[in-house]
Amino acid sequence: MNYSELYNNIVRKGSFLCTGLDSDPALFPEHIKVMKNPIFEFNKAIIDSTSQFSVAYKPNMAFYEAEGAAGWEQLEMTVDYIRKKDPSIFIIADAKRGDIGNTAQRYAAAFFGRMDFDAVTLSPYMGRDSIDPFLSYEGKWAIVLALTSNGSAVDFETAECGDKPLYRRVIEQVSGWGSIDNTMFVIGATRPEKLAEIREFCPDHLFLVPGVGAQGGTISDVAKYGMNSRCGLLVNISRGISFSWRDDKESYPGGKGFEKSAAIAAETAAKEMRHHLLRGV
Amino acid sequence: MNYSELYNNIVRKGSFLCTGLDSDPALFPEHIKVMKNPIFEFNKAIIDSTSQFSVAYKPNMAFYEAEGAAGWEQLEMTVDYIRKKDPSIFIIADAKRGDIGNTAQRYAAAFFGRMDFDAVTLSPYMGRDSIDPFLSYEGKWAIVLALTSNGSAVDFETAECGDKPLYRRVIEQVSGWGSIDNTMFVIGATRPEKLAEIREFCPDHLFLVPGVGAQGGTISDVAKYGMNSRCGLLVNISRGISFSWRDDKESYPGGKGFEKSAAIAAETAAKEMRHHLLRGV
Repeated sequence: MNYSELYNNIVRKGSFLCTGLDSDPALFPEHIKVMKNPIFEFNKAIIDSTSQFSVAYKPNMAFYEAEGAAGWEQLEMTVDYIRKKDPSIFIIADAKRGDIGNTAQRYAAAFFGRMDFDAVTLSPYMGRDSIDPFLSYEGKWAIVLALTSNGSAVDFETAECGDKPLYRRVIEQVSGWGSIDNTMFVIGATRPEKLAEIREFCPDHLFLVPGVGAQGGTISDVAKYGMNSRCGLLVNISRGISFSWRDDKESYPGGKGFEKSAAIAAETAAKEMRHHLLRGV
Repeated sequence: MNYSELYNNIVRKGSFLCTGLDSDPALFPEHIKVMKNPIFEFNKAIIDSTSQFSVAYKPNMAFYEAEGAAGWEQLEMTVDYIRKKDPSIFIIADAKRGDIGNTAQRYAAAFFGRMDFDAVTLSPYMGRDSIDPFLSYEGKWAIVLALTSNGSAVDFETAECGDKPLYRRVIEQVSGWGSIDNTMFVIGATRPEKLAEIREFCPDHLFLVPGVGAQGGTISDVAKYGMNSRCGLLVNISRGISFSWRDDKESYPGGKGFEKSAAIAAETAAKEMRHHLLRGV
């Protein structure tokens, strides 16, 4: 998928929502916990109830690896399910990988060859060797960490390197390795003023923006400071959709009907996004 | 395991060799390729023939993930096998993970809870949030990327941040989060002059040193510039041991006897290490 195709999907659905699948079994509804493939069943229900509002899904690898081979199998089942459900959906492996060339090639083979992800999140620390193998797959994307949403992003990401913060150096350098059709950057929603500053020197790339909801960022700030003329954003919400029922346990006793809660949360987010898309930059 | 226990094992075996298990099935001997669990069978043969010379093993996750659930299963089998074979061996998950707190916790649960690794390699880019969860496991280690062995380490790792290169900032800052009993740094063997410089400002920590062999680093340079009074080194060799037979296909037709070739390579490396250990710093 290239940028134009992804943008067309954003316009068609009126949404730039990426639904995160941080599917931690400890937090599942009781009736899901007892199923044979609980992670897949949970994801399936979330996908069925949110796919009309989502242009992308983003499983975070940690939650699958923590379950070993069974987790990995259910990750593959999830990717296949999304592909069949709606082939237009952009699927991101939130893996934050980064390794030397021959090893990065194996990661790329895992996510783009064995599984049918559209994109993988990557750490830039080790430099170009660790990004290039992902850029050699036609139609696939590298989503590179730049300024993340967590508090300790200030430890290194914002450190001044020469005349600019490290995250800016990363964005400027990595931009030259690929194109706007295969490279995005992760920019957290928790620092909207930085988002505006980054949009100034990186006008054309897509940003994957985590940190809305539980972490404190808002869709309106992200849209205000981060949009470009072709949207330029995928805003990720994980817990705020899949586990929204946990904030209203009276309406969803034991998690019964959790998928309705997820649908409402996704629709609410998508409605706000549609508003920003219609208004434009 | 703490530093003293690991150092005792180094002294007892007369070796600071970490044997890397970058077990790429495409490179396996023919008779291994046809087995039911080829990755495990390959690793088992390598472990049997090299464990007397190795104080540590380091499977790189990429090679297991590329095989999906089956790869993950054989990774778990490998860790169990090493534990039973020689409980003194230090087992490193070369994962280079790095994610926000709640996610990092899930990775830590995967490697330290579900599986019985002693250590995980981590990327420092996202800061303390992404390291701390690994330091909260008693007796387990975070091995943090500092100055890696690949060519493009110069893209960001050596960038000047204020008055020092990024890798130095990483080492100085991360050192304060844990102790010498739960934190190591990855320092590549390909830049021995840097190893000497790093040893100056980081005298007491263990370094995990990749890049010997195929990547061009040498044991003697690493020992000369990187040792401290308690060895202070785990030197990793991957391809130079497990796939050494591929450089001498006449003696090992179709890979038959590959484990003997691995044993010779490991013994040769360990002999040189013993020499450096006896000579001391």
